[in-house]
Amino acid sequence: MVVMKETASDAEIEAVVERIERVGAKAHVSKGARVTVIGAIGDVETDAAVGALGLEGLPGVDRVVPILKPFKLASLQFRHGEQSVFEIGNAKIGGPYFALIAGPCTVESRDQVLATAEAVKEAGAAMLRGGAYKPRTSPYSFQGLGVEGLALLKEAKERTGLPIVTELMDARDIEPVLEVADVIQIGARNMQNFTLLAEVGRAGRPVLLKRGLAATLEELLMATEYVLKEGNAQVILCERGIRTFENAYRATLDLQAVPVLKELTHLPVVVDPSHAAGRRELVTPMSLAAAAAGADGIIVEVHPKPEEAVCDGPQALRTAEFAAYAEAVRRAAEVAGKVPAGELARAA
Amino acid sequence: MVVMKETASDAEIEAVVERIERVGAKAHVSKGARVTVIGAIGDVETDAAVGALGLEGLPGVDRVVPILKPFKLASLQFRHGEQSVFEIGNAKIGGPYFALIAGPCTVESRDQVLATAEAVKEAGAAMLRGGAYKPRTSPYSFQGLGVEGLALLKEAKERTGLPIVTELMDARDIEPVLEVADVIQIGARNMQNFTLLAEVGRAGRPVLLKRGLAATLEELLMATEYVLKEGNAQVILCERGIRTFENAYRATLDLQAVPVLKELTHLPVVVDPSHAAGRRELVTPMSLAAAAAGADGIIVEVHPKPEEAVCDGPQALRTAEFAAYAEAVRRAAEVAGKVPAGELARAA
Amino acid sequence: MVVMKETASDAEIEAVVERIERVGAKAHVSKGARVTVIGAIGDVETDAAVGALGLEGLPGVDRVVPILKPFKLASLQFRHGEQSVFEIGNAKIGGPYFALIAGPCTVESRDQVLATAEAVKEAGAAMLRGGAYKPRTSPYSFQGLGVEGLALLKEAKERTGLPIVTELMDARDIEPVLEVADVIQIGARNMQNFTLLAEVGRAGRPVLLKRGLAATLEELLMATEYVLKEGNAQVILCERGIRTFENAYRATLDLQAVPVLKELTHLPVVVDPSHAAGRRELVTPMSLAAAAAGADGIIVEVHPKPEEAVCDGPQALRTAEFAAYAEAVRRAAEVAGKVPAGELARAA
Amino acid sequence: MVVMKETASDAEIEAVVERIERVGAKAHVSKGARVTVIGAIGDVETDAAVGALGLEGLPGVDRVVPILKPFKLASLQFRHGEQSVFEIGNAKIGGPYFALIAGPCTVESRDQVLATAEAVKEAGAAMLRGGAYKPRTSPYSFQGLGVEGLALLKEAKERTGLPIVTELMDARDIEPVLEVADVIQIGARNMQNFTLLAEVGRAGRPVLLKRGLAATLEELLMATEYVLKEGNAQVILCERGIRTFENAYRATLDLQAVPVLKELTHLPVVVDPSHAAGRRELVTPMSLAAAAAGADGIIVEVHPKPEEAVCDGPQALRTAEFAAYAEAVRRAAEVAGKVPAGELARAA
Repeated sequence: MVVMKETASDAEIEAVVERIERVGAKAHVSKGARVTVIGAIGDVETDAAVGALGLEGLPGVDRVVPILKPFKLASLQFRHGEQSVFEIGNAKIGGPYFALIAGPCTVESRDQVLATAEAVKEAGAAMLRGGAYKPRTSPYSFQGLGVEGLALLKEAKERTGLPIVTELMDARDIEPVLEVADVIQIGARNMQNFTLLAEVGRAGRPVLLKRGLAATLEELLMATEYVLKEGNAQVILCERGIRTFENAYRATLDLQAVPVLKELTHLPVVVDPSHAAGRRELVTPMSLAAAAAGADGIIVEVHPKPEEAVCDGPQALRTAEFAAYAEAVRRAAEVAGKVPAGELARAA
Repeated sequence: MVVMKETASDAEIEAVVERIERVGAKAHVSKGARVTVIGAIGDVETDAAVGALGLEGLPGVDRVVPILKPFKLASLQFRHGEQSVFEIGNAKIGGPYFALIAGPCTVESRDQVLATAEAVKEAGAAMLRGGAYKPRTSPYSFQGLGVEGLALLKEAKERTGLPIVTELMDARDIEPVLEVADVIQIGARNMQNFTLLAEVGRAGRPVLLKRGLAATLEELLMATEYVLKEGNAQVILCERGIRTFENAYRATLDLQAVPVLKELTHLPVVVDPSHAAGRRELVTPMSLAAAAAGADGIIVEVHPKPEEAVCDGPQALRTAEFAAYAEAVRRAAEVAGKVPAGELARAA
Repeated sequence: MVVMKETASDAEIEAVVERIERVGAKAHVSKGARVTVIGAIGDVETDAAVGALGLEGLPGVDRVVPILKPFKLASLQFRHGEQSVFEIGNAKIGGPYFALIAGPCTVESRDQVLATAEAVKEAGAAMLRGGAYKPRTSPYSFQGLGVEGLALLKEAKERTGLPIVTELMDARDIEPVLEVADVIQIGARNMQNFTLLAEVGRAGRPVLLKRGLAATLEELLMATEYVLKEGNAQVILCERGIRTFENAYRATLDLQAVPVLKELTHLPVVVDPSHAAGRRELVTPMSLAAAAAGADGIIVEVHPKPEEAVCDGPQALRTAEFAAYAEAVRRAAEVAGKVPAGELARAA
Repeated sequence: MVVMKETASDAEIEAVVERIERVGAKAHVSKGARVTVIGAIGDVETDAAVGALGLEGLPGVDRVVPILKPFKLASLQFRHGEQSVFEIGNAKIGGPYFALIAGPCTVESRDQVLATAEAVKEAGAAMLRGGAYKPRTSPYSFQGLGVEGLALLKEAKERTGLPIVTELMDARDIEPVLEVADVIQIGARNMQNFTLLAEVGRAGRPVLLKRGLAATLEELLMATEYVLKEGNAQVILCERGIRTFENAYRATLDLQAVPVLKELTHLPVVVDPSHAAGRRELVTPMSLAAAAAGADGIIVEVHPKPEEAVCDGPQALRTAEFAAYAEAVRRAAEVAGKVPAGELARAA
């Protein structure tokens, strides 16, 4: 839909029409009292062709208003309004199922991973999270244990049966990650690393894609299309806080994204309250809020001794307090009409 | 606390010390391996005097880091860690009490106000909200019924016994507003209208102060100080969405503000989910999220026939569905450990 | 223009049409391959009526896209593409004329005001700025000299002949301000203080309206309509920095606002580099940038002894260096094709 | 520097001291009237160790204020206040030298690249930009010509002698890019793709690193450290617009970043006005503003026939008008005291 300026001449209107029709769409001119609006009517292919025309650069054009949503495979319409449910190990996520994903920020040691894995399983978590490759703002910070960390996650999985969620930062590391990960996490900073997205699309393993700190929901869904387009239909979206002017916390958790994404897409939507909060005290209230808002799950950081954590200790829940936390989250999810998944279900 | 540049000379350090001591504070110089830090130690008055020095403009100064919070009367410390509870009519708000405040965006007609008031009372609301003076982005939009609207609110109050929350936009209208309002609302756009804040401070009536769209929590608390300083201790803070890059909704509801404000201040914190959402479909999930996050209340828009509302109809809940909404919110507040206040309590 | 959801039924489309036509506009239905778009065609009055319908709340509606700009009197079209030029005292601003407005943040003393006024006049400033009423984040900060400050500005005006720009914060102070002000400044925090805007509209004196920290350009122009609608056509718009995630400076100066506003409105656009920068070192480069971007003027803070300023000293230019600054700004304005106004012209 | 809460106990203070000293730093306790502040004094290594302690998670801690800047190799101090100047082909950039980098958004065809290259060389550009690998929000958009595009850039370089700036998106493509690129561009979306940054660090070729849409200046400099740390000292920083609430343009060009970065780092800083503007009409005023603000260069998009461009045509300058543009930019750079580099110098 092209909105012309009030001062647009007939020739300028004609030039827009001509360019729309040249790529195979039908132009529909609607002259109002003050401005003329030109619609471009066609199928999906001609839509894309019209979008690429750069009509906003033509003389007399005020602006171009896209009418159709630019994402397709991720849209709720693509599945005729039916939400996707993924089975990952013994856990279910999406639709009615609520999944709690918990574990350490970073894999540090065998003791730390196994102690955490057992505590979160006991408390009802559906999956174990843990990072072996860590994207760090500073090159002088700890960058993760790499393949050694992956091996520890594998051991935790064998012990507890919990599916593993772990991050892939570089397409060149995909093979060792695929040996361990039940869900490949793509971090917020890589949300628009398009070649990495295509790579995990081809890998065919479920993906947990975090929203970038300045990404609109539409951009998040377009990034998702890069994965879906390769034939991988299992993407879990994750809200983890956006960047705003407020500096009282690390990021502003945007919980309105939860109900809005669920109107737009069939894919499950989870919330990471740890990174936005940055402090343990805020993680519980924001987890309850996320569950009550209708999230399909929560991914949260837990550590046996947060004071000794290598990374992000202040935001990690304590394993000792995790069962009470999980129970409170379960109650909040029930307010939103959700069914706990995995062990959390059995605990209920 | 003044952080000097790495390149600062001894004379530049001395100049900072001299200016700090001239206003009566004690300067404490701490030389590190790379930079020198100068602390200014004194009481509240010298703190303010040091803050006003503009030391960041002196040669050799890298930045000034304030150590003390700039708000006092609003701080949790001011009440030694005890939260304020306000009794407003039959309702309580703050501390353990959760209050649901509901009513139309704008007072439109006698029928509309009375029908809404009765429906929200029935469903357990603690107070009735309604606007007679409306701040509108456009001068061509409906600006409210003014004193006529206030009279209708008065009638609704007499009928239902519900305390009234209504907005004051201009200090020159304070007298008629004081005849009706149990709580005077100051809108987000007037959060830093400092002469208006002082005026409601002097009026001694409870105030509901909405956070500005780009106001930090610290600025919200500083605006509160303008009211408290005049001797009015009853201020209710309201999160109603902040402005971010995301344009999928009218504003981004910042629920993390709830637990963070409750760490900083003794004052009650409520959430307005209607204005951030802009659409009815989002109001219920965001209300549940706000209650689960520990808010002391929710202020929400309700209308008997939203399709015919003069203003913001799409975001108004329907009176016919309000009882079910109130019940769900009550359950979410309980997850956060809150006790419903007013009629909502009796409904429970 | 109403965009329906892909799943909208014929009855839902019909309901939208019916409501549009009920308020006197003509509905124009355009069915595409996937979605239906309904245009509402009418005159300015029916446009407003359609806008107030809240159609985004109806079933089957995806979103409402406004086609016409909501501001009228401020629009460039309203003057058929001709820019406004205002004569204020001996100065001109707007169209080809570039005006430098300079002076202290706050009026502090007779010596300070007169020394500054003489220095800026000497260097070629077109007007003198200075605050007698100061909006301060903290109630514990200096709030301005009030009427005493206005008297000092009057004396400076008599001495130098420079027109005075000074802020009005409260409609109840308008009379003393009108005795001194050639231009009434409305601060960023009061940009949407609608009753104050209407008051200065009725006063008929030129107004300098600062953009709010989170105000879109469209909102700035809508606020301007409040003044213009009262019959006061002389409004100068002022970009002074917006609030973003970046905390390396007080605000992010949005210079792109300059060329964009000049496409949208006939009114002059000036830039305040002092408040965004917060530091003297940044004021000169940002002033040159503003002038090169095509601003119609700059409003900047100057002080004889910034180290002793009561308020915002670190961002004040020194009177001793002001002539060199003014000369550099003049050169930058010439790159943008501007003619210096007032004394700056004579200095050239 | 650790700021304790007002309510912190002696034991809590002692616990912080103990943890600071355990990693080898010296704790310095400063008790004020209301709060206690604990400084950690040590060398660079102990600073990093203290930073990793997560002290903000300990009981009684209010917040941790870093005193030292976290970047080292990029800092202006690292070169004792001397700005870096890079020689790239016949061009110089940094210090006094201003470089104009121009060319198409995307390499589309031999004719397009050669025509553009010749036009920009003629007008005085110092380098030729052009993309062979294109990061696109949508997987359905044109993704670039890849190696075929690189070959066309190589031909343009042979013809004109202009050094080539081209983007690398994926570390696996580095070899063909190194055969052509004189400067490797890392796009805004990859600013925190840390493994890619390390890779171009090892490649030893000059890098142009674009600021991410939500990246602070400190994060930009930390990303730079990833390159410098590998031994590659030639990084050019690029401001290209940040994401804010304002939707009247694609991004908000943050020109204040220019003088602030130049205070913080020895590296050259250039501005890309095309992507923030999104429209040709805004590119010229913002280019003049960037040059007047003291930028070390501008990187801008140019096309022989923007109406037929595959990508971002509306923001491309026309080759036919480029000489006039370059001349205006040269004048603006001179206002900022800059010397034109490369052909622009000869044109002067």
